[in-house]
Amino acid sequence: MPQLRKDPLHERWVIIAPERADRPNALLRAARGHDGKQSCPFCVGNERMTPPELLVRRGPSGPWSLRVVPNRYPALRTEIVLSRAGVGLFDSMAGVGAHEVVIETSDHAKDLGELPAAQVSQVFSAWQERMIDLARDIRLRSAVVFKNSGAPAGATLSHAHSQLVALPFVPVELTAEMVAARRHFEAKERCLFCDLVEGELRAKERVVLETEAMVALSPYAARSPFELWILPRGHSSSFESSSGQDLFAAADALRSVLRKIDVALDKPAYNLFLHTMPLREPRNDWFHWHLELKPVLTLQAGFEWATGCAINPTPPEEAASFLRQTEV
Amino acid sequence: MPQLRKDPLHERWVIIAPERADRPNALLRAARGHDGKQSCPFCVGNERMTPPELLVRRGPSGPWSLRVVPNRYPALRTEIVLSRAGVGLFDSMAGVGAHEVVIETSDHAKDLGELPAAQVSQVFSAWQERMIDLARDIRLRSAVVFKNSGAPAGATLSHAHSQLVALPFVPVELTAEMVAARRHFEAKERCLFCDLVEGELRAKERVVLETEAMVALSPYAARSPFELWILPRGHSSSFESSSGQDLFAAADALRSVLRKIDVALDKPAYNLFLHTMPLREPRNDWFHWHLELKPVLTLQAGFEWATGCAINPTPPEEAASFLRQTEV
Repeated sequence: MPQLRKDPLHERWVIIAPERADRPNALLRAARGHDGKQSCPFCVGNERMTPPELLVRRGPSGPWSLRVVPNRYPALRTEIVLSRAGVGLFDSMAGVGAHEVVIETSDHAKDLGELPAAQVSQVFSAWQERMIDLARDIRLRSAVVFKNSGAPAGATLSHAHSQLVALPFVPVELTAEMVAARRHFEAKERCLFCDLVEGELRAKERVVLETEAMVALSPYAARSPFELWILPRGHSSSFESSSGQDLFAAADALRSVLRKIDVALDKPAYNLFLHTMPLREPRNDWFHWHLELKPVLTLQAGFEWATGCAINPTPPEEAASFLRQTEV
Repeated sequence: MPQLRKDPLHERWVIIAPERADRPNALLRAARGHDGKQSCPFCVGNERMTPPELLVRRGPSGPWSLRVVPNRYPALRTEIVLSRAGVGLFDSMAGVGAHEVVIETSDHAKDLGELPAAQVSQVFSAWQERMIDLARDIRLRSAVVFKNSGAPAGATLSHAHSQLVALPFVPVELTAEMVAARRHFEAKERCLFCDLVEGELRAKERVVLETEAMVALSPYAARSPFELWILPRGHSSSFESSSGQDLFAAADALRSVLRKIDVALDKPAYNLFLHTMPLREPRNDWFHWHLELKPVLTLQAGFEWATGCAINPTPPEEAASFLRQTEV
């Protein structure tokens, strides 16, 4: 059974998930996925290779256009009791949570950025629907959606998919952003993200893409080359409460950004993730949902582990300029 | 020129170091190192391929047994003025700092764990001597020593080496440990690390190795498989003030642990780093220097980036038991 652990030196939970490993010394082998279409559990005809569907969308052709299924090797599990304990200096919690896989298309050969905007929008709407459903379980405090594309980004299967993990706590990266945004709002009565967006649109130098409803930019203190944030231009605290029109605008922007990245960097592996308010929180004036995209071009090495400080060889102004000029 | 940047959403500095990249879309190529002995800049006879030495140790054979040289592609530079500026919502600082390379042996074929304990101890004493020298520059507030061994760990050269970076700020990972340790001391008048060591030695289940002066253990909330901490059993706040005897004991323990890892996990790539008090701080009763070792067996993927929460498939108790039983 998975377990959450925290030591007194660090303000972060760690998920100890023994079911995700074969045996102690065979870890790296697990990272290599099978890639043949025939044995791909996410392909049409292989639906029995996954656990039963939580959600399915039908399209104009084929038996389905999107499926959501439980992860076969979950980091957390819903069917256990949320017990908590202090063990000497340490804290633990049962590994309660949900871990789902969104199969983004029936087409084995296409990544998210190669799909039509309507299909990307369908992916967003599936994320939204699953988050709203999971919010009914009051043990779950937050949900994070992420995507690993390509083996260097941690993907074990190449068929386009994203993952949704619902957690019994609010993770540190989200907490940090919430604390900073809240502090800014308390001092200034303005949303920090709205201020950021406005400043970046004025300065232009880090903006990659600007549509009526969305902006994509490389952040001032980008931690890795070509790190990008994609945000709604208008204030919106939670992804779950976005309208279908908002989701389509976001999908269209993400798709354009992914195509630019693919052309500019020759289809790099990437991680993509969504930061939105914790589950069941009412809308507010101070948080602003956004997507973060990290092409995998550098490694997390000793210096980064030791310090928590990243070394980025590519100034975000250069990355943004390069991507602005990339035609798709 | 390198620059330090911070955005208002995150309490962490990022080093923007354009000199470390070729051009925007050629990043991954830079990660592949040349590996031939002939062209290895760290080998005997190729001393001119590195900048002039900052420190050299002579051994019984060969022209030298250890060299410290400035990094040819530094993340930070000493020869610039430490200017600081607020830029709208953002903070920046000139990229002032030192970035040095410790060539740990003249033997191209041996990694740190394959060297005699006396040679590992010489490496530690070189770290110490360089830290003491760098502490004289009052712009530099902390120093971090780290080692990337193997390409998956971020090493571009295979010849055994570690790196020392001195920073004009105290990095978040170290600050977090200091804050937690200080809070513990204020509440209990005891060192948190001493309490941890005592508890682990009593429980035994996460202890890998125990010598008269040192202990190696897999931490309760290990973030990755086989993460290990190596600490002095007796209280010692700073590595710089450790005696030659202390350093030898630490070197001997590290060498045993590296050999166990090599046998148990078939010479994995690994990151190793040192956490000690910021520069020029007097000894104290609440911090406790230690080494952290992370074999590279899993990837930092989307979930970890999104949350700051690690998923570790190997319980530290299993890792420790496996390593205890590994004969070297």
